[in-house]
Amino acid sequence: MTTFNTISIIGAGAIGCYYGGRLAQHNRDVHFLLRSDYRHVRANGLRIKSIDGDFDLPPGRLHVYDDSAAMPRSDLVIVTLKTTGNDQLHRLIAPLVHDDTTILTLQNGLGNEDELARLFGAQRVLGGIAFTCINRTAPGVIEHIDYGLIRIGEFAQTGLSDRITRIAEMFNSARVPCEPVENLLAARWDKLVWNIPFNGLGAMLDCSTDRLIGSEAGVAVVRAVMDEVMRCANADGVFLGSDLPQKKIDMTFRVGAYRTSMQLDRLAGREMEIDSILARPMRIGNAKGVATPLIGLLCFALSAQSR
Amino acid sequence: MTTFNTISIIGAGAIGCYYGGRLAQHNRDVHFLLRSDYRHVRANGLRIKSIDGDFDLPPGRLHVYDDSAAMPRSDLVIVTLKTTGNDQLHRLIAPLVHDDTTILTLQNGLGNEDELARLFGAQRVLGGIAFTCINRTAPGVIEHIDYGLIRIGEFAQTGLSDRITRIAEMFNSARVPCEPVENLLAARWDKLVWNIPFNGLGAMLDCSTDRLIGSEAGVAVVRAVMDEVMRCANADGVFLGSDLPQKKIDMTFRVGAYRTSMQLDRLAGREMEIDSILARPMRIGNAKGVATPLIGLLCFALSAQSR
Repeated sequence: MTTFNTISIIGAGAIGCYYGGRLAQHNRDVHFLLRSDYRHVRANGLRIKSIDGDFDLPPGRLHVYDDSAAMPRSDLVIVTLKTTGNDQLHRLIAPLVHDDTTILTLQNGLGNEDELARLFGAQRVLGGIAFTCINRTAPGVIEHIDYGLIRIGEFAQTGLSDRITRIAEMFNSARVPCEPVENLLAARWDKLVWNIPFNGLGAMLDCSTDRLIGSEAGVAVVRAVMDEVMRCANADGVFLGSDLPQKKIDMTFRVGAYRTSMQLDRLAGREMEIDSILARPMRIGNAKGVATPLIGLLCFALSAQSR
Repeated sequence: MTTFNTISIIGAGAIGCYYGGRLAQHNRDVHFLLRSDYRHVRANGLRIKSIDGDFDLPPGRLHVYDDSAAMPRSDLVIVTLKTTGNDQLHRLIAPLVHDDTTILTLQNGLGNEDELARLFGAQRVLGGIAFTCINRTAPGVIEHIDYGLIRIGEFAQTGLSDRITRIAEMFNSARVPCEPVENLLAARWDKLVWNIPFNGLGAMLDCSTDRLIGSEAGVAVVRAVMDEVMRCANADGVFLGSDLPQKKIDMTFRVGAYRTSMQLDRLAGREMEIDSILARPMRIGNAKGVATPLIGLLCFALSAQSR
């Protein structure tokens, strides 16, 4: 039985610092690969403000790096890199991999597991979906504002594996609610039914979720995009309940005003995750003959706006 | 046989001043209802710069008004009011109407003739579509940059009437190319196949026509919107050639960089003609069971952006 003694976080932005920080707080041996905040965090540590309890990780309790070549070979590599940097996956992860390394991607959208499987072998790869609201508000300062659940599953098989169960236990014992899922692909598509309309429309129109569903016309547009995503999921062999779109909309009403990551990226002039969140799911549907005029429009619009 | 001795231009913006100005230049008795430029034009006249020849209309040769109650009863009322002001049509036109008054709307989109027919009787109503590029560049200054054709037809019947033929002759003899059409509704839908995608997408994305079709993805999106318009037209009993979308796209390539009126309206913070150009055609299709997810998205987006 593999034990996850050494853990690396690759692309430790807000999400990676929070989840990795929780594991470090609970005495796991966690190594963070940072980029922009590297110097600041090495000198000052991490400060985490969280609805589940604030905590600090002072420099003496942190292993931070700006180069994965300096990091230890790891039993578990958690990938939280923004998907727009996926061309760096091999370079960043290869130095960390030993024979039994497991790689868990918590990245957004579709296709990240496939990429890691191609690079490092499918048997290593797990995927996870983070349902949370976490922002970096200053160098080394992370704010966890709401939610926090991670759903994780095997990439190369369905069903609950031993390692999935143990990783879930590890997170749960570190104050991170984590739910193992039998069908990762279904969980990914389930999330996309929300992510594609709200990220796509929210970024294109610079519009928070409450405004998108603040009128009948808006709800109809969101529903129409969701319907396209549902058809793509079906074409990919995933059958989600037909009441899922309505459930997602009801949930969104309860959440209130919320700006998606893609809207925030666009506002800040950062690259948007168009490919992983919108284009790859669309191409899967298209390859199976599903028409996706609305997602096509969103992809085109966001690409035009990000030029 | 009605003669068109007295002509009134209702809502004389750039289009109305240009076409009315050409008629006045050629010795027609033309009366202009202006709003924002009234005082300036009354004092200084109109200056028209045109690819078909510049001309001035000094105050002594102009009849301008800021209140239609002061205008003469007219044989021909030409409506160039922006459609967002259509709730004013009765108030503005009623004082001008005698038993034989003909009303010609050159407004954008669909439904304007219906509105005038409801208010003043269908037999009076003609419609026209202006294919032109005319801007007001300063108070009392109109620039006619390109094109200029008007296509006009009867509202309550198909076929070429005597009055349509005579109005076309009047325009043609005043340097305005004018083509009578047998089927006004078909001509309106033909224009909408271009107007809906390029106005809608151009305004939503603040994108000129050349950029919209500057990539394969963009052409695909424009085509998909055009296909929805074609289906709405069919549902409205209008059968346009299936090669029309490609022809429109080819024509748009030849035109080069062009900003639609709706894009310019949005940029200037002016009200956009969402209802007449997009929503009314969409509703006609929807009422006949045609799905219009893309036009629905455009309507929603533009309404959200104009708030």
